[in-house]
Amino acid sequence: MKLPKFEPSKAVLFGETSDIYLARTIDILRREGLNPVATMQVFPSRAGILCGIEEVKALLAKVLPEDNREVWALAEGKTMAAKEVVLRITAPYQSYGLYETAIDGILSHCSGWATAAKECVEAAKGIPLISFGVRGVHPSVVGVMDYSAVVGGCDGCSSIIGAKLAGIEPSGTIPHAMIIVMGDTVKATVAFDKYMPPEVPRISLVDTFKDEAEESLRVAEALGEKLNSVRLDTPSERGRVTADLVKEVRARMDLAGFKHVKIFVSGGIAPERITYFLESGAPVDGFGVGRYISGAKPIDFTADLHEVDGKPIAKRGRIPGITPNPRLKRVM
Amino acid sequence: MKLPKFEPSKAVLFGETSDIYLARTIDILRREGLNPVATMQVFPSRAGILCGIEEVKALLAKVLPEDNREVWALAEGKTMAAKEVVLRITAPYQSYGLYETAIDGILSHCSGWATAAKECVEAAKGIPLISFGVRGVHPSVVGVMDYSAVVGGCDGCSSIIGAKLAGIEPSGTIPHAMIIVMGDTVKATVAFDKYMPPEVPRISLVDTFKDEAEESLRVAEALGEKLNSVRLDTPSERGRVTADLVKEVRARMDLAGFKHVKIFVSGGIAPERITYFLESGAPVDGFGVGRYISGAKPIDFTADLHEVDGKPIAKRGRIPGITPNPRLKRVM
Amino acid sequence: MKLPKFEPSKAVLFGETSDIYLARTIDILRREGLNPVATMQVFPSRAGILCGIEEVKALLAKVLPEDNREVWALAEGKTMAAKEVVLRITAPYQSYGLYETAIDGILSHCSGWATAAKECVEAAKGIPLISFGVRGVHPSVVGVMDYSAVVGGCDGCSSIIGAKLAGIEPSGTIPHAMIIVMGDTVKATVAFDKYMPPEVPRISLVDTFKDEAEESLRVAEALGEKLNSVRLDTPSERGRVTADLVKEVRARMDLAGFKHVKIFVSGGIAPERITYFLESGAPVDGFGVGRYISGAKPIDFTADLHEVDGKPIAKRGRIPGITPNPRLKRVM
Amino acid sequence: MKLPKFEPSKAVLFGETSDIYLARTIDILRREGLNPVATMQVFPSRAGILCGIEEVKALLAKVLPEDNREVWALAEGKTMAAKEVVLRITAPYQSYGLYETAIDGILSHCSGWATAAKECVEAAKGIPLISFGVRGVHPSVVGVMDYSAVVGGCDGCSSIIGAKLAGIEPSGTIPHAMIIVMGDTVKATVAFDKYMPPEVPRISLVDTFKDEAEESLRVAEALGEKLNSVRLDTPSERGRVTADLVKEVRARMDLAGFKHVKIFVSGGIAPERITYFLESGAPVDGFGVGRYISGAKPIDFTADLHEVDGKPIAKRGRIPGITPNPRLKRVM
Amino acid sequence: MKLPKFEPSKAVLFGETSDIYLARTIDILRREGLNPVATMQVFPSRAGILCGIEEVKALLAKVLPEDNREVWALAEGKTMAAKEVVLRITAPYQSYGLYETAIDGILSHCSGWATAAKECVEAAKGIPLISFGVRGVHPSVVGVMDYSAVVGGCDGCSSIIGAKLAGIEPSGTIPHAMIIVMGDTVKATVAFDKYMPPEVPRISLVDTFKDEAEESLRVAEALGEKLNSVRLDTPSERGRVTADLVKEVRARMDLAGFKHVKIFVSGGIAPERITYFLESGAPVDGFGVGRYISGAKPIDFTADLHEVDGKPIAKRGRIPGITPNPRLKRVM
Amino acid sequence: MKLPKFEPSKAVLFGETSDIYLARTIDILRREGLNPVATMQVFPSRAGILCGIEEVKALLAKVLPEDNREVWALAEGKTMAAKEVVLRITAPYQSYGLYETAIDGILSHCSGWATAAKECVEAAKGIPLISFGVRGVHPSVVGVMDYSAVVGGCDGCSSIIGAKLAGIEPSGTIPHAMIIVMGDTVKATVAFDKYMPPEVPRISLVDTFKDEAEESLRVAEALGEKLNSVRLDTPSERGRVTADLVKEVRARMDLAGFKHVKIFVSGGIAPERITYFLESGAPVDGFGVGRYISGAKPIDFTADLHEVDGKPIAKRGRIPGITPNPRLKRVM
Repeated sequence: MKLPKFEPSKAVLFGETSDIYLARTIDILRREGLNPVATMQVFPSRAGILCGIEEVKALLAKVLPEDNREVWALAEGKTMAAKEVVLRITAPYQSYGLYETAIDGILSHCSGWATAAKECVEAAKGIPLISFGVRGVHPSVVGVMDYSAVVGGCDGCSSIIGAKLAGIEPSGTIPHAMIIVMGDTVKATVAFDKYMPPEVPRISLVDTFKDEAEESLRVAEALGEKLNSVRLDTPSERGRVTADLVKEVRARMDLAGFKHVKIFVSGGIAPERITYFLESGAPVDGFGVGRYISGAKPIDFTADLHEVDGKPIAKRGRIPGITPNPRLKRVM
Repeated sequence: MKLPKFEPSKAVLFGETSDIYLARTIDILRREGLNPVATMQVFPSRAGILCGIEEVKALLAKVLPEDNREVWALAEGKTMAAKEVVLRITAPYQSYGLYETAIDGILSHCSGWATAAKECVEAAKGIPLISFGVRGVHPSVVGVMDYSAVVGGCDGCSSIIGAKLAGIEPSGTIPHAMIIVMGDTVKATVAFDKYMPPEVPRISLVDTFKDEAEESLRVAEALGEKLNSVRLDTPSERGRVTADLVKEVRARMDLAGFKHVKIFVSGGIAPERITYFLESGAPVDGFGVGRYISGAKPIDFTADLHEVDGKPIAKRGRIPGITPNPRLKRVM
Repeated sequence: MKLPKFEPSKAVLFGETSDIYLARTIDILRREGLNPVATMQVFPSRAGILCGIEEVKALLAKVLPEDNREVWALAEGKTMAAKEVVLRITAPYQSYGLYETAIDGILSHCSGWATAAKECVEAAKGIPLISFGVRGVHPSVVGVMDYSAVVGGCDGCSSIIGAKLAGIEPSGTIPHAMIIVMGDTVKATVAFDKYMPPEVPRISLVDTFKDEAEESLRVAEALGEKLNSVRLDTPSERGRVTADLVKEVRARMDLAGFKHVKIFVSGGIAPERITYFLESGAPVDGFGVGRYISGAKPIDFTADLHEVDGKPIAKRGRIPGITPNPRLKRVM
Repeated sequence: MKLPKFEPSKAVLFGETSDIYLARTIDILRREGLNPVATMQVFPSRAGILCGIEEVKALLAKVLPEDNREVWALAEGKTMAAKEVVLRITAPYQSYGLYETAIDGILSHCSGWATAAKECVEAAKGIPLISFGVRGVHPSVVGVMDYSAVVGGCDGCSSIIGAKLAGIEPSGTIPHAMIIVMGDTVKATVAFDKYMPPEVPRISLVDTFKDEAEESLRVAEALGEKLNSVRLDTPSERGRVTADLVKEVRARMDLAGFKHVKIFVSGGIAPERITYFLESGAPVDGFGVGRYISGAKPIDFTADLHEVDGKPIAKRGRIPGITPNPRLKRVM
Repeated sequence: MKLPKFEPSKAVLFGETSDIYLARTIDILRREGLNPVATMQVFPSRAGILCGIEEVKALLAKVLPEDNREVWALAEGKTMAAKEVVLRITAPYQSYGLYETAIDGILSHCSGWATAAKECVEAAKGIPLISFGVRGVHPSVVGVMDYSAVVGGCDGCSSIIGAKLAGIEPSGTIPHAMIIVMGDTVKATVAFDKYMPPEVPRISLVDTFKDEAEESLRVAEALGEKLNSVRLDTPSERGRVTADLVKEVRARMDLAGFKHVKIFVSGGIAPERITYFLESGAPVDGFGVGRYISGAKPIDFTADLHEVDGKPIAKRGRIPGITPNPRLKRVM
Repeated sequence: MKLPKFEPSKAVLFGETSDIYLARTIDILRREGLNPVATMQVFPSRAGILCGIEEVKALLAKVLPEDNREVWALAEGKTMAAKEVVLRITAPYQSYGLYETAIDGILSHCSGWATAAKECVEAAKGIPLISFGVRGVHPSVVGVMDYSAVVGGCDGCSSIIGAKLAGIEPSGTIPHAMIIVMGDTVKATVAFDKYMPPEVPRISLVDTFKDEAEESLRVAEALGEKLNSVRLDTPSERGRVTADLVKEVRARMDLAGFKHVKIFVSGGIAPERITYFLESGAPVDGFGVGRYISGAKPIDFTADLHEVDGKPIAKRGRIPGITPNPRLKRVM
C-alpha cells in the first residue's frame, strides 16, 4: 500500500488534546529558562503490529527544530516485540514535550486496531477479509481505524474515508435496511444491479426474510452470471452462521448450476470463528470482520526520558541511557 | 453537569464516515423514488451507561425534516439494560439512513467509556476519581473520551479539550518528565509552586528518583502547608503501588506532622485494584484511572427498522413493530 | 394412570436371560439338597424414580411358592433414595435365585428411564412433555421405555406399543419424511388434515424447506382454526431452536391473527434446554423429549442376601440382617 | 465370529414399536396414491463400532420388494466415523417408511453397546474381557446386548441367550449368593467342582467372607491343580479392588506354590480402571466388565431422505442427493 | 493443661543455633559501644494457634537484664490473627539480639504443629484425637511436637517424652510389628493383656493378617469385657479405612454382643478425612492423627525493631513505632 | 562434602522419643522370651533425596549386636524412588524394634529438607544457593536442617551449628536489625568492614531505609573495591524483589563503575521464583533460600517387617519376603 500524507489538526498542535500537566510543564520550564536536549523513547506493553508512526512523524516534522533533532523509528506495519523501543526522539525538550500524549495515543489506538486485524489475517490463511466495523467506533476515528485495519492486512474496508486514507476502493454489499425498505431481497438486488456501475460487485444479502438457502437460489436465478456473491449474516437469535449452513448453501447452489457465485460470511467474525469455519471445511470465499478489529483494546505505549543533556538518566524502574535497537531507522 | 452543545463535522454530514453500502442505498432509493416513513430502533448488546445520545441528537436535528419526524430517547448518562431500545427515530428513510453508522459508532464508543468509568466509580465508594487515560486513545477522540468519563461519574479529567466539553477545569499533577528534566523532585515541586496560580492544587509525584516514603517527607518539608497531595505511581518493575505502601507513607507523614497532605494513587487502576485498596484499608484520597476507561471495549449497538409506511416489519430474528419502552422520552 | 398387567416371557422364566452362574448355582444347590428360606434385598445405587416393580411382581407371582413367601416393595413411580431397600423377598432360595438378573435388569432400565423423565418434568414446571425417543432404543424395549417415561411424568408418548402399555393414546405430529415425499409443507399438512380423524390434533412441522416463521404463517393460513400447533425442530446445522426463534414465531403469528396456534419444540430437549427456554421467557406450549429419556443411563440395582434360615448374614461390605424400611408395603 | 440369523418380531413388523406419525404417514400416502422410489440414508452422530446392521438387514429382507430395491451398508462390527452414512436404502417409500424407528433403534442401542465394549478392549491390550452386565438391562434386550458386546470385542458373556446369539459358550464363576447360602467359600467351591462338567473352568470368588488373600490360599489348597482362577470383586465399601491387592494376592499365591491359578478382576471395570491396573503393573489375567458396556449411552442415528423419484432433495440443514461413501457394500 | 518448665539448651544460649550474622552484629555493636534500648515485635504471617511462647519466655528470662526489660505476650495456646503482634520485647539490644533466630524458630515450628492439631480438633467435633505422628519428625523435636499437638487440642500423644512435657500419660495400642513377630493378632492381644498393668486400655489392631471384621470378632471373643477398642488402620494398598467399613464392623460387633468395644481409626487422618467419616455417619470413637500434625508447615514468624532509644523507627515496608495490641499481657 | 560423625542422644537411646507401644512391645516380647531374627525394610512414600541415613547408622551401630546383624542401605544424598527400599535391617528384633520411630523420624525430616534444597539447586542451574531458613525451625533441629540443606546441594548455610555439622564456614550478610540500631546503611556497612576479618565477604543489605538502587550506589561508593555484594530483600509490602529491580540495580551499578559488586537476592525464594528470575534474564549472583527448605514437608517413611526367623511374612497390603534392590550396599 502507498502511505498517506497525514496532517496534524490544530487541536493537537495547540496542545488541547494533551494532558494539562504537560502544558504546565512546558510553561514552567520556559519561565525557568530550561530547555535541554533530551532523548525520549517510546515502547509498547505487548507485542503486535506498529501503526500510527506515519501520523506521529507528520506531527514531529511540524514541531521539532530542523537543525537540532534526531528521530529513529520502526516503519508502519512492522511487527514489534513487547517493550521494544519503536521510536526515539532527541531534541530540545520544550519543542516536543507537549505532544507525549498525542504520540502515545496515536500509536496505542492504531496499533491496537492493526494488531487485531493481523490476528484475523493469520487465522484466515489467505481468504480475503474486509473491515466492516466502523459502526463500533466514534466517527472521528473511522478513517484511522479502517486505515489501521488495512495496515494490519485487511483486503478492504467499508468506510469511504478509511478507504481514501488507505488508497483503495471502499467495499460494500447491500444492507438489511435497504431490503426491508424495498420489501423483498430479490427486488432490492435487482435495483442494486440496475443502478450501480459495472465495476461494483453484485453481492446480495440473503438472510433478511427467508431461509438463506432458498433466498440464495432466488437471487441467483434473478441475476444469473452477474451475481458475484451472497452474504450470510444470520443473527444470533437464529443460531448465527454455521459451517454446515455454508456447506449446504454451497451444495444447493452448485446443484442448481450457480458454481460461480461466491459465499461471503459476516457476523461476529473473530480469529476463533474464522478457524472454526476453516477447520470445519466450510467453503467460505470471504469474511467481513466487524467489532473484533474496531473494538480492539488499544496497546499501551509508554514514553520515557533516558538522556538529558547527553547524560544517561531514568526514573526508578527504568534503565538510564539509550536502549540499543538495531531495527530502528533514522527518519528525521 | 451541564450538557455541551455538539456540532456534527462535515465528514459525518457528507457521509464520508459511513459504510459505503448506506451511501449506495440512499442513491438507489432516490433513483427509485422510494422514501417511505420508516422507524428505526437502536439498542445495545449489553447493559451499561448510555452516552453519546446528545451528540446523536445534534446530528439528527441537522438532518431530519422538522415537520415529519418523531424521535424518542433515553437521556445522557442513564443506565440502560441489555437489548433495551434507547433511541427510536420515525422519519422519511432517505433523511437519516446514511447516518446509521455514525449513530451506532457514537453510542458504542461513548457508552463503552462511560460504562467503564461507572464501574470504577462504584468500586471507589465515594473516593474521587480522575480520568487520566487520554494517552490511550487517538487525539481525535480525546475530547469525547474524557467527556464520557465524566458522564460516567469521574470527578475530573486530565485533557484540556475533554474538560472544556464537560464544562470543568482540567486536573493534573507533575509528570515524571518534568522531574527528570529538572533533576530532582523537590526542585520540580518548588518550581511548580512558584509559577502556578494559587487555585491549582500542589500535587507532587514522589516515585521518580527515591524511595516514595523518603521523597514524600522531603517534598512535605519543602512546601509545608501548601502541599496538597503526593501521588504514588510506582511502576510494575518496582512492584506497583501496594496497599501497604499507602499505609506506610500515611503513617510516616502523620508521624512527621503532615496529616494535611493527601495521598493520590495511579498506575493500572481498575475496579478490582480499587477494591483491593479499599478492602485492605489503605487510606487513599483519590485515584487516577487511565486505560481501564480509555481502553474500554465499545458496547455494540444495533439499529433495526421495525416499521415501514406504518406497517410492522423486521428482518428474521427480530420482532416486527415498535418495541414499547416507557422509559423513553420524546426529544424531537 | 392405571397400572398394566405384565406377563413374563418364556425366555425369562426359563432363565435364558439370566447369568449362567445363577443357573449353575440352582443346579448345584438342588443336587446338594439345599433350599433354605433366604431373604434377598434389592437397592439402587442412586436416588430416582422406581419403575419396573410391577413387572417384577408379575414375575415373582409366577415363581414363588404361594404358601411360603413374603414380598415387600415400594410402589411403581415412587421416589427412592440412594441405597434404599425397594424390594425384599423372603422365600425358598431355589424358587427365585435364578431371577436375580431379571429383577435387577428390569428395575435398572425402567427406573433409569423414569428418572430421566422426571428430571424433565421438574424442569418444565407444568408445560406438557411427550416422549419422542423410541428411535433411540432397540424395538424390544420400546414398550417398556415409553411406559417408564409416562410413569416418570410424561404426558404422552409416540410409540403405539408404549401408549398401549401406559393406557393412553399415542401422540404424533408430521415427520420430515412425509413432507419431503410430498414436496411441500402446506401440501402435507392439508393431506394430514384431510385423512386424519377429527380427534387427532393438527400439528404441523415447519422447518423442512423454508424459514420457520414464514412456514408457520403459510400453514396457519392454509388450515386456519383447525391448526392446533406448529412444531419447531431446527437442526443443529442451522443453529437449533433458540428461545428467540420461539418468541419471534409467536409474535409473527399473533400479528397475523393466529393466537390460537400453539408452539411445540423438539430437538435435543433435556432439563437444561427446558430451563433455558423457560428462563429466556420463550412461550413454548409443549416439548418433545427424545434421547434424554430413551438414552438415559440405567440405574444400578444390587440384590443381596441378608438372612438365610432366619439368621442374619451378609458378604463383606454389607450389614447382616434385614434393613428396616417403613416405606415398604407387603405386596405378596 | 459367525453371524447369527435374526428374525423380526411381529410387533416390529406390524409397526407397533414405531412412532405413530410414521404409521399415519404411510396411511395418508396410501390414500393419496403416493409411493415414489425414495432413498433414505442413515448415519450416526458420533464415531464408534457399527452393530445391529445384521438385524436391520433381516427386517429389510422381509419388507422391501425384491424387484425394486437397492441396499448398501457397512458390515457388522466395522468402525464408523461421525456422520458417516452406514446404510442407504432405495425402494418405494411405502415399503419401508414405517420402519425408520426400528432401524434407528436397533443401530443406536447395539452400536452403543459394541462401542463401549471396544473401548474396554482397546484399554485391555490383549487381556481377555467377559461381558458381565446383563443385570443392567431389561431382559428383553439381554440377548442383543451381550451379542453386541461380543461384536465389540469381548471374549465371552455371562448370559445364556447372549452367548447363543453370539455362537459361543456362556462364561461364569460363582455368585456371592451361592457362597452365602452354603456358608463358606471353600465349601461352595468344592461343591461347584463336584457337580460341574470338567470343561467348565473352576473360578472361585474370594471376597465374600474373609480377606481376599487368605481366602485365595484356602480355595487353592482345597482344589489344587483343578483351580483355574480366583475372582476379586471387593465392594466399594471395602475400597474396591486395588492394583496393590492384585499384586499381593499374586505374590502370596506364588509363594505358596499356586502359580498356575489366574486372577480375574471385576467390579466397576471401565477403560480408565483397566488402564489403571495395567499402568500399575497389576498381574490381572482377565476382567469382567459390567455396566460400562450394558449401561452405555446409545449412539444417536438419524435417517434422512436424500432422493425422491431420482431427484436430489433434503430438508434444511442437509445436503440434497446421495452422499458418496466408497466403504459401503451392496447387500441387497 | 499444666504448663511445663522449659530449660534453654547450651547450644541455644551460646548462639550456636543462631544465624551467624546476628553473632557478628552483637560483636560489632559491642566493639562500637552501641547498646541502645530497643523494642522488637514478633508476628506470624498467618492466623493460627500460638505455641512455643513458654519456651521463648524461659529463654528470655535467662538473658534479659532483670532491671531493664519489658516483655509483653499472648499466652500459650491462644488463637492469633495474621500479622498480629504476639510478643514485644523492650531491653538493651545486645542482651537479646542474638536470639532472634531461636525466638522465631520456636514459635514457627510449635505454632505450626498446634495449629494443625486445632484444625483436626475442630473437624472432630468432640471425638477424641491422639497425636500419632512422631515418626514424621526428627527425634530432637519429638517432645515439643507432641507437646504442641496437646496445646492445639489433642487428647493424647504417643511419645513418652511428649507426654511427659504435656503432663499426661502416653497413649498406644499394639503395633503391626508385634503382631507379625508373634504371628497372630489374637495371640499378640492376649499377651498384651497378660503383661500390661490394668490401667492401660486394651486396644487391638485388627488389620494385620485377616479381614478387619473377622479379626475384630476374634479378639473380642478372646478378651471379652476386657477389650477396650479395636483399631482400624487398613493400608492404602487395601483401599484405606472407609466409613462403610466402620459401620460394618460396628454392626457385626453389635450383632455378636460386643457393644462395649470402641472403634478407633488411624491412617492418613486429616480434617477432610475426619469430616468424611462424620458426614457419612461412621460411628468412630477416636482418631489417631499422624503426619497431618507432625508434618505441618511451620508458620512464618517475623521479628522487627520498631523503636530504638525511645524513637519510632522501622525498615521500609513497616510502620515505625509500637503497634498497639490490647490482647497482650505483660509477662516480664 | 566430608560426612560428619553423629552421636545418638540419651533420649533416643533410652526410647523416650519412641512411640510408647514400641516400648511395651519390647517389654512383652522380653517377658515372653521371643526374640527372633527379623528383617525390617524402610521406604519413602515419594521420590527425593535420601538424608539422615548417616545418623541412623550411628544409632544402629550402638544397638545392634555386632555378631548377628546385617544392614543394607543407600548412601547419604542419593536420589531415591517412591517406595524404593532404602534401608534393610536383619537382626534380633528386640535389639532394634524400639527405634522404629527414630529411624523413620530422622529419615523423614532430613530427606524432606534435602529434597527441597535439591529442587532449588535444580532450578538455579549453577547459581550459588545459601540456606537462610533456620528461623523457620525449632533450635533443636537447626543443625540437622542446615546439614540436610547442604546434603541437598546448597553451597552454604547461615547457622553456626549447621555449618559445623556440614564441615563448612557459615555464611552471612548484615541483618536489618543492625542497620536500624546504627541508623544508616552506610554506617553499618563501614562498621562491618572495620571489625570483620578480611576473609569474611562484605555483603551489604540495601533495602532498609532508602531506594535499593540509590543505597547500592551509596555503599559502593563508601567501600569501593572491598564491597563484595549487595543483598536485595525488598519486603512484600513493597512488591518484593522483581527481576526488573535486579536488572536496574545492575545497570546503575555498571554505569557508576561498580561492575565487580555482585547481587544477592533473598525473600520468599523457591524454585518457581528462581526460575522466574532466570527466565527473565535477571543477573542474580546468588540466592538466599529460607523457609522453602526449612519449612519443607517431611517425606513419609514406613518401616515394615518382611521376614521373621527366615520366613517371608508381611501384613496385609504388603508383599511377604525381602524386596530386592541392587542399589543397596551392605553397611554393617
